[in-house]
Amino acid sequence: MSHSIDFYFDFSSPYSYIAAEVIEDFAAGVKAKVNWRPFLLGAAFKETGGKPLIEIPIKGAYHLKDFARSAAYYKVPFKLPSKFPANGLAAARAFYWIESQSVEKAQSFAHAVYRAYFAQDQDITDTDVIAAIGQQQGFTPEAVVVGSQDQMIKDKLRTVTETAIARGVFGAPFFFIGDEPFWGVDRLPMMEMWLATNGWRY
Amino acid sequence: MSHSIDFYFDFSSPYSYIAAEVIEDFAAGVKAKVNWRPFLLGAAFKETGGKPLIEIPIKGAYHLKDFARSAAYYKVPFKLPSKFPANGLAAARAFYWIESQSVEKAQSFAHAVYRAYFAQDQDITDTDVIAAIGQQQGFTPEAVVVGSQDQMIKDKLRTVTETAIARGVFGAPFFFIGDEPFWGVDRLPMMEMWLATNGWRY
Repeated sequence: MSHSIDFYFDFSSPYSYIAAEVIEDFAAGVKAKVNWRPFLLGAAFKETGGKPLIEIPIKGAYHLKDFARSAAYYKVPFKLPSKFPANGLAAARAFYWIESQSVEKAQSFAHAVYRAYFAQDQDITDTDVIAAIGQQQGFTPEAVVVGSQDQMIKDKLRTVTETAIARGVFGAPFFFIGDEPFWGVDRLPMMEMWLATNGWRY
Repeated sequence: MSHSIDFYFDFSSPYSYIAAEVIEDFAAGVKAKVNWRPFLLGAAFKETGGKPLIEIPIKGAYHLKDFARSAAYYKVPFKLPSKFPANGLAAARAFYWIESQSVEKAQSFAHAVYRAYFAQDQDITDTDVIAAIGQQQGFTPEAVVVGSQDQMIKDKLRTVTETAIARGVFGAPFFFIGDEPFWGVDRLPMMEMWLATNGWRY
């Protein structure tokens, strides 16, 4: 039987970036398929009273350290971007437009956005940057910009974000296997056990 | 070389309970010594604006599920206590009095308090319950009650809690290896790598 993992992520979330770098290998190992679902974490924060980690006293300082350490642990290149956190809106809309053309290219685009932001310190709120990354996937910059502004694409991102919130997503990365929720890249071992035991009872 | 792990925990924290159940085996595996440091997480919350997980909208519901699931993952018995969260003050003071008599007995006492609370649904805010658990370690109930009220013991708990906050502790369990902070039982694999590589650079 083949499993399916819904992978909710925000382009501004370091732990989501790490998850994006490792999730396909993980999924291959457990014979699962991954549904890549970028959403706007800021919208979820409005429901839960959450806020970006680095804005929280004391906890923020810990996480700045833990971002870099976690990246090293998972062997993923990481450099805290000059502009952090950043709004993932432009990247997420472009993702869904590219996805409407090719699911595979959308995943490659997501990887490229993450590396541009968290490894090369590019400004992913800049639509020129996003269009250039889209161009690497074989689209003209104009097509990416125009496609991202399509009302259907805007609605798609809004719907995914509302669905995420309705399913209880309050942070990122956030995974579902069926209805079972898992928050954080550090939950991968638990997801593996969950899949290996067909959803153990607890 | 022998390493030392400072283990900060609150008696009302489910993830601290799980950590307490597994930390000694973990430490034996990495040849480290564990300093058991119960503290009052509520005091840390006052500094950071944190609050008990289950009081947070949406996130609370997730963690109620994740407490039980994490316990199953780590193979630790768990039943959400009727009274949760509970104030760990009485248990923490009794811990430090017992520790003043025997470090080993204090650890056994901590284990017994955790199992009474998270597996047997006993009320650990009740000094009679705490005294009875102390009696299992070979102390008279009166000695535990009187010892816990000693000003030196009260000061000890206050000092440990203030030190924890000064070191940046904002949640529980919280570990330090030297000055390197690790938050959460899910950071044990990272701690293992940290120890195995003598504190890798990142």
